[in-house]
Amino acid sequence: MSEPIIRELKEDDLWNGFLESLDSLKQASNIEKTKAKDIFEKINSNPDHIVAVAEIDGRVVGSATLLIESKFIHNGGLAGHIEDVVVNKEYQGQRIGEKIMRYLVEKAKKRGCYKTILDCTDDVKPFYEKLGFKQVANELRLDNN
Amino acid sequence: MSEPIIRELKEDDLWNGFLESLDSLKQASNIEKTKAKDIFEKINSNPDHIVAVAEIDGRVVGSATLLIESKFIHNGGLAGHIEDVVVNKEYQGQRIGEKIMRYLVEKAKKRGCYKTILDCTDDVKPFYEKLGFKQVANELRLDNN
Repeated sequence: MSEPIIRELKEDDLWNGFLESLDSLKQASNIEKTKAKDIFEKINSNPDHIVAVAEIDGRVVGSATLLIESKFIHNGGLAGHIEDVVVNKEYQGQRIGEKIMRYLVEKAKKRGCYKTILDCTDDVKPFYEKLGFKQVANELRLDNN
Repeated sequence: MSEPIIRELKEDDLWNGFLESLDSLKQASNIEKTKAKDIFEKINSNPDHIVAVAEIDGRVVGSATLLIESKFIHNGGLAGHIEDVVVNKEYQGQRIGEKIMRYLVEKAKKRGCYKTILDCTDDVKPFYEKLGFKQVANELRLDNN
């Protein structure tokens, strides 16, 4: 069992496992190449939008996103938002998700975020609770279609 | 009872009710002037970070924030995140919060967000449910102090 390298997303990752690993969350690998590249460039130029990936044997097998939000409250504080945590099915159970999360939580802390928040369903709550997260509220959603 | 004007935040609003109205959420009006101005400029230069305010009789009495997140999933879709919805205590019960929310939900829709999400505690859930939001998950938080 190889140890994953946890690092930030690079453009080459898009077609080297990254979009494919997102498929377990929601179909992503069928996106147009130029569109995916545009999104990568937008994210990459924004220091407050960080995508972390786990690489094993030269291929991306999982990822998660951290958005850093500037607020006026908390004396102009920063809030970290974790999104889209995913690990390829065949790589689950190897604590890869945990390693990606620890990387992003540490990143948020280093950037000075006073809190890191995320939304999750009941089935994955214990995973985040083991990392120190506590339920504080509800996530509500409105679909725009 | 004056009808509120709902619009985007301007720099002059900072010391014309905006930071004060955030105080009902979390102390904000004691922030250093230059720091508040820096945050305003950062937000103002980011088209994906929108702060809406309600103005009554020339003064800001409420606000809310919309963050637009670029995702790779959903064919490179956008997700809207609503944050920090607040109305001054003495102006509550006049449907001002509802008007700010409808403004931001419409904004998210026009920008092409496939969903708009927010986190809230049980006590204010009915307010968002009336606007069409539905509970889908839990909000978890990790404090970094």
